[in-house]
Order: sequence, then structure tokens, then C-alpha cells
Amino acid sequence: MNYKVVINVIGRIIVTEAALLLLPTAISVYYSEFAVVQAFLITAAIAAILGGIFILTTRKTDRSLYAGEGFAIVAFAWILLSVIGSIPFVVSGEIPNIFDAFFETVSGFTTTGASILKNVESMSRGLLFWRSFTHWIGGMGVLVFVMAIIPGSSKGAMHMMRAEMPGPIIGKLVPRARATAKILYYIYIGLTIAEIIFLIAGGMPIFESVVHSLGTAGTGGFGIKADSIGGYSPYCQWVITIFMLIFGINFNLYYLILIRRVKAVLHSTEMWCYIGIVVFAVGTITANIYSTYQSFSESLRHSAFQVATVITTTGYSTTDFNLWPDLSKGILFVLMFIGGCAGSTAGGLKLSRVILLFKLIGRELRKLLHPRSVSKVKFEGRNVEENTLESVSVYFAIYIACMMIIFLLLCFEPFGLETNLSATVACFNNVGPGFAGVGPMANYSQYSEFSKLILSFAMLFGRLEIFPLIIALSPSTWSKKHR
Amino acid sequence: MNYKVVINVIGRIIVTEAALLLLPTAISVYYSEFAVVQAFLITAAIAAILGGIFILTTRKTDRSLYAGEGFAIVAFAWILLSVIGSIPFVVSGEIPNIFDAFFETVSGFTTTGASILKNVESMSRGLLFWRSFTHWIGGMGVLVFVMAIIPGSSKGAMHMMRAEMPGPIIGKLVPRARATAKILYYIYIGLTIAEIIFLIAGGMPIFESVVHSLGTAGTGGFGIKADSIGGYSPYCQWVITIFMLIFGINFNLYYLILIRRVKAVLHSTEMWCYIGIVVFAVGTITANIYSTYQSFSESLRHSAFQVATVITTTGYSTTDFNLWPDLSKGILFVLMFIGGCAGSTAGGLKLSRVILLFKLIGRELRKLLHPRSVSKVKFEGRNVEENTLESVSVYFAIYIACMMIIFLLLCFEPFGLETNLSATVACFNNVGPGFAGVGPMANYSQYSEFSKLILSFAMLFGRLEIFPLIIALSPSTWSKKHR
Repeated sequence: MNYKVVINVIGRIIVTEAALLLLPTAISVYYSEFAVVQAFLITAAIAAILGGIFILTTRKTDRSLYAGEGFAIVAFAWILLSVIGSIPFVVSGEIPNIFDAFFETVSGFTTTGASILKNVESMSRGLLFWRSFTHWIGGMGVLVFVMAIIPGSSKGAMHMMRAEMPGPIIGKLVPRARATAKILYYIYIGLTIAEIIFLIAGGMPIFESVVHSLGTAGTGGFGIKADSIGGYSPYCQWVITIFMLIFGINFNLYYLILIRRVKAVLHSTEMWCYIGIVVFAVGTITANIYSTYQSFSESLRHSAFQVATVITTTGYSTTDFNLWPDLSKGILFVLMFIGGCAGSTAGGLKLSRVILLFKLIGRELRKLLHPRSVSKVKFEGRNVEENTLESVSVYFAIYIACMMIIFLLLCFEPFGLETNLSATVACFNNVGPGFAGVGPMANYSQYSEFSKLILSFAMLFGRLEIFPLIIALSPSTWSKKHR
Repeated sequence: MNYKVVINVIGRIIVTEAALLLLPTAISVYYSEFAVVQAFLITAAIAAILGGIFILTTRKTDRSLYAGEGFAIVAFAWILLSVIGSIPFVVSGEIPNIFDAFFETVSGFTTTGASILKNVESMSRGLLFWRSFTHWIGGMGVLVFVMAIIPGSSKGAMHMMRAEMPGPIIGKLVPRARATAKILYYIYIGLTIAEIIFLIAGGMPIFESVVHSLGTAGTGGFGIKADSIGGYSPYCQWVITIFMLIFGINFNLYYLILIRRVKAVLHSTEMWCYIGIVVFAVGTITANIYSTYQSFSESLRHSAFQVATVITTTGYSTTDFNLWPDLSKGILFVLMFIGGCAGSTAGGLKLSRVILLFKLIGRELRKLLHPRSVSKVKFEGRNVEENTLESVSVYFAIYIACMMIIFLLLCFEPFGLETNLSATVACFNNVGPGFAGVGPMANYSQYSEFSKLILSFAMLFGRLEIFPLIIALSPSTWSKKHR
């Protein structure tokens, strides 16, 4: 393990966080929230100093990076970013408990949107902005951001990108990792600005438009109202529905549109499956909840919003879907596992993995009937490597195993199977709200500090897709024998 | 597809069922339940005639059997056995509804033990015996039984055995499939008789000892009292606990003991994992429920019984574990998925699959760190073939996917997530009782006929490990192009 390069890159990431903290500081100054300004400045100073020390002490180092270093950087960077990011909440006194503040910040960066706040409307503007801004930063990935803005050797940069970007196959858009990162961020910024404009056009105040757009872009879900998006006009709800769905699609497709290869976009299996699932779920739920709302347009709007929020693992809500009939709840529960497309900002298992798993099942059936047959699995027009297929099926096993373990650790709480299981699934898949005690109109404040820590790590494991954290936290990675 | 051989073998299986029906008939005669005697004789006659027609019309046929035929035989034999086996319940009028009777019979053959009976104590002795006898027949496998008793070409017999026997790797004990089947049945009968003797020695009436032993041996779980095993003495409860655990171990190990290769038994990874999980679960639950029972021996007894009943997917109970604290319920919930050892009569995923999945996860982690490394997975001292490993991980994917689909279909019922989800898990893994509305002191009678049919097939899919039914029911298997 090349410790120095790990510390060096983490240092750069923390310094970047210090710089990013200046944006919410400016918001706080604008709204004259001086206690919060102070909290932000103290945090930025801590981050800058810590990051500076990390960088300066490891200046003269071999810049080469292998898979192990990539995973370690990603894992520790995310933990450290969350620890530092929680300081403003504690120092300002708005979330005095450090476990609560850590939970809230991890929930932000991992784009989960699960909250421990009992009264979100009493928070200051600056901290509300910071919460949503962490969604935006975490959505596309912090390392991707650092790579996009900081010049330097990109040797081994793909290792980091692979560790941070979700999905089974990471395609580079262009040969250089840094250029890929830049393109992704341009698309990301462009779509975010588009949503802000659409929301302002619908009469949503500017601050609220910005905050909600940041949360949509990262598929995060932190709202700033007690009823999340429920109080806004149907127009605004539809805008957010559509943008949630847009941010749940593989960003590579937007790049293909930009370079006018629209035909390739139309051949994306994953996109068509995504659309198919959304249409099916929205249709079924609309029919199922029609008797509740007695209006087709209202049923359709709530159904579409909730399907979009759950499949993209965002977590906003326009109504308390916990009160819906079991069939609608059951569909939402299953969608929580599937998640959005690979290469999007959505969490969950990712649709492309689900598709590959079904293709593997089909191949297994053929093999059972014709033991000597050999067949390749094709996806998006290309043969998928056997190594990738094995990774996908093994990832599924560890994905379920992780949820089982987290669920068992949560069972020390007396909230019942539905609450504890849906809390596990909603946090691990970065959705946010679950059912019963953690439904969209409830929050996670009733959990103990121990459980909040477990759920914080559940969110991190889910966002980073398990392996980086296990590798970084396992002693064998750090033993001498590895290089 | 060689239709004739499929029909021929199914015919033989049905005739065997006709013969097996004479045993409960005798019991009914002994207890002077003449209405039930009539019901059994009518059913036996139907089975004998139908089976006879099947055999006679396909006498002159090529006896060769391939994988496709093996799967089709197993799938249709199990469905037909269950349909015929449900006739006595309907004809006698004790379970007048055919969906209820089919559910109860499938639950018997698949050794699930889920019941729709609201008042089991009002049933006749003959039908109570038949219910438990179906557990015993289904536990080791009907085809295995037919192979053991009927002489004939064993060409392709392994294909059938492979389709019916649970677990990822089917080892033949001796070169000939028929001899293997015989040995397995000798062990099975021997252990069942041992349990009967132990229970009678503890003062349990003979009829009840026999019935409970048949249910234990098949890891079934149909009781004959409203409180299942709760009313019997601690001695009897402990005897059943220990025998449940015994029937959850791979029968190959008992064969190894018989041929005095005890050392090989002590090297069984699966057995040690099984013991480890049981000890851990019993210890944790004992501590967790101690405050409820205020007695160490009582807590230990209930804990051990419930852990044994769930991990072996039997389904008896001595107490309403639905009222236990969440941690204990959470542990039982996870154990439902794991199930017993491969090659036992227990259901669930099977422990050897779980172990192989964890080994695959370990290999994936090594691969991520050292992409060029190649390593074999070892199990029980031998290298596991890559094909088997792929089957195990793909099986896990289809196993979870099946449960998701069954759960969604159950969500048309208004019983809430905990009831519907645990009903799915408990039926699919052949456990029997779940939580909340389908807890050990409740039953499945509240479900609609549609849901009962879904759950019946869930039990069949779980018992036959999914693939045989999918293959048999998919149109492509029956199209001309396959042979």
C-alpha cells in the first residue's frame, strides 16, 4: 500500500471541501445568519489546515496508484468528508448531537435523504443549503469532481473513478479520465440549472428552487418543508418528477445525445427497461390508489412522483405513501432494491445489474437443459466478459448479505420488522424514507446513537457499493505483504 | 422431449402414491373413521387407475432420460401427487374447499407445514396421519423413494435425483443411483423409528409420537394440537429439538458414520458452520428472551426449539415466537433464508450454498485488489468447479427474484408488509409459520383462493429449487426443436 499517495489525494479532497464550504457561507452571509457563518468558517479552516498538512507532508511521493489505493482513498475520503461536513451542524448548535450530525451529513453525501430532524422548517437557510449541496456533491462523486478541477497526473485515476462510480461496467467516454470527469460535470451542471429555471418559472422561490434542484440532481431527497414537496403546485411536482427520472438515467446517454449519436441512445436496453418499469409501476399504483384520491390526475401525479422518487432513490414525497394500499407499498418496496440506471446519480442495485442477473438466470436454464452448451451473455449489443458476470452475481450476494447483517444489528431497536427492515433497505439503497416508523412523514430521530451509526455506515456501504469500504477496513489490505 | 418416458415414470409414481394411501386407510380403520376410510379408498382407486393408464399406454418406450425429462418428471409428479393427495380432504368433507385442500397437501409434501386449518384438533386421526405422512414422503423425495423400491433401468436416474434432491452438489454415495436411494431411505427410516421410541419413552401417546416423528423427519411441521408442541413435557420438546437438528444435517454424513469413516465427518465444513450458527442463535435468543420467561432452562428450551424449527425449516413451535423481542424475531427471520444442510430434508437456501457464496465474495475481494490473480474455491477439501460456483450464485439471484415476485403477488392482500413478506419467506423456504398474521399461533386461512394458489406454488418452487418447475412450465421445453 502506497500510504503517501492515499494521504495526498485525501488531502486534496479535503481542501476541495474547504473551498466548497464557502458557497453555503456566502448564502448565510446573504441571509444574515452570522452564527452559521461562523460555524462554516471554522469548519472550512479546519478542513483547509488538515488537508494542507496531508498534502504538504506527502509532496514528494510516487504518484502511482493501484486498485488497493483507489479503494482506500475513496473509502476514507468519504468518511472524512462526512465527519468534517457535520461540524457546521454541531458548532452552530442546530444539530447538537454528533451522531445525529454525522448521520445527517452521511445521508447528504450518499444522496440518501434520510433525516433525523424533527422540525426541518426551523433550520437556518445556510445549513439547509449545505444539506442539499452535499447531495449535489455526493451525487456525481467527490473524486470525480476533484479530478475534473485539479490538474495532475491521472495515472491510476480510473482506479478511483471505478471505486466511486456506481454500476457494473464503467465506460470511459473519452480516453482520458479527467476529460470524462469534466464532461460528466458539465452535463450535471447543465441539467441542474435547467431544473432551477423550470421551478422558478413555476413560481417556486429562488432559494427553494435551487435547494430542491440540488437534491433532485444528486437523487438525494432532503426537503426543506415538513411535507417535503407536498405543498407545491402540481406543475412544480411534475417538474421534479421528470427531473428525478432524468437524473436516474445513465449520463453516458446524454453525452451520446450531445455528440449527436441519438441512434445509440435508442438502442439502450437499460433505458428501455427503466422506462418500462416506471410505466408499469405508475400505471398499477395509479389504479390501486384511485379510490383514495377520487381523481385520475391526482392519482397519476402522486403515483408518478412516488415511483420516480423511489426508483431513482431520491426520497422526496408529495404524500404519505405509507398510508397507501399494500400493493402500492409492495411495488415501492421492490423498486427500492432495483434503483436507477448505472452511471446515473441514483442508488440501489442498478438496473443494468438486474438485467444481467436475469440474463444469467436464462443462461443457467439453458445450461441445465443442454449441459454442454456454451453461450455468451450480450448486453447493449456487446458480449459481456465472464469476469464482469461473476462480479455482478457475487455483488448481488454481498448486497443481500450486507442488508441482512445491517437489519440484524438494527433489531436491537423495538420498532418492529416493518420499520427496521424498511429502514435498512431505504438507507442501504440510499432512498431515504421507508415505511411505518420511518415513512415519508416520519424520521430517523427515534433510533439510538448505535443504530444511527450503523445506518450511517449502511448508507456509505450502499453509495460506494460495498467493496471499497470492506477493502479499506480489512486489516489484510494494510499488512506488509501487499506490495 | 421423450413424452412417453415422462408419462411412464409419473404413472409409476402415482401408483406408488395409491399404495402409500393404504397406510392412512389402515389407521382410519383402526380408529373406526369409516367416512375417511371411504375417502382414502376412492383416492387410492383414482390414483391406481390413472397411474395404470399412464404406465400401460407407454409400456413400449425408449427408457433413456435426459435432463429435460428429469425436470419435467419431477415437476409434474409433484403437482399431480399434491392434487391426488388433496382428494381425501375434500371427499371426507374435512377440508371442503379444493384450494384449501391443495394448499394443505402441497404444504405437506413440500414439508412446509403451513396450514389453513383453524381447528386442527377437530380433524380425524386418519387425515392427521396422512398430513404428517406427506411430510415424510416429501422430505426425502418421492422419486428417490420410487427408485429405491422399483427395480428397473437406472439410466438417467441421476437426472431425476438431481432435480429432486436439494443442494448445490449431489454426491452419489455408491456408484448406482438406486443403491444410493436405498441407503438414504434406510437411514431415514432408522432415524424416524429412533425418534418414535424416544417420544414414547417420554410418555407421549403412540399415535402422537408417530405423527410428530414423521413431521420431524421430513422437517415438515404439521402439528395435531392447537399449540403445536407447546403442551408436551420439556423432555419431549428436547427430543424433538434434537431430532429436528439431526434431520437438518447432510445424510451423507450418517452414511459415512455407518461405514466408520468418522474422521471424514469431523472435517465437514458445512456441519461445523451449522453447529456454529445454531449455538450462536440459541445463545443470543436465550439472553434476549430471558426477561420474558424468568427462567434460564425455560428460555434455553424455547430458544433451542425455535432455532431448530426455523433453521431446519420444520415449523413446529413450543411458544408464540411472534411475541418475542425484535432481535429474536430478526434472527429467526434470517435463519428462514439459510435453511439446513444440503442433502438433508430441510429447505431454505441450504447452508453449503451460503458458505460457497461467502467464499465467492472473498475471491471477488482478492480479485479487486489483484486483478490478475486466479484462485480456486475449495469446499470440504476439494476444488469446486467454476460451473458449480456460477450455478450457486445464479441460483441465489433467482431465489431472491422468485421471492420478490411472490411477495408482489401476495400484496393484493391487505395484511401488511410483515405478514405478506413473512408468509412469502416462510412458504418459499418451506418453514411454515411466519410472523404477525401468519405467526405460529395463527394460520393461512385468511388468504384468498388466488393467494393460496400462489403460496402453494411458492412452496413447490422452494422445495424443488425453482429450476425444475420453470423448465417444465416453459413452452420452449416442449417445442419440437429440442430433440
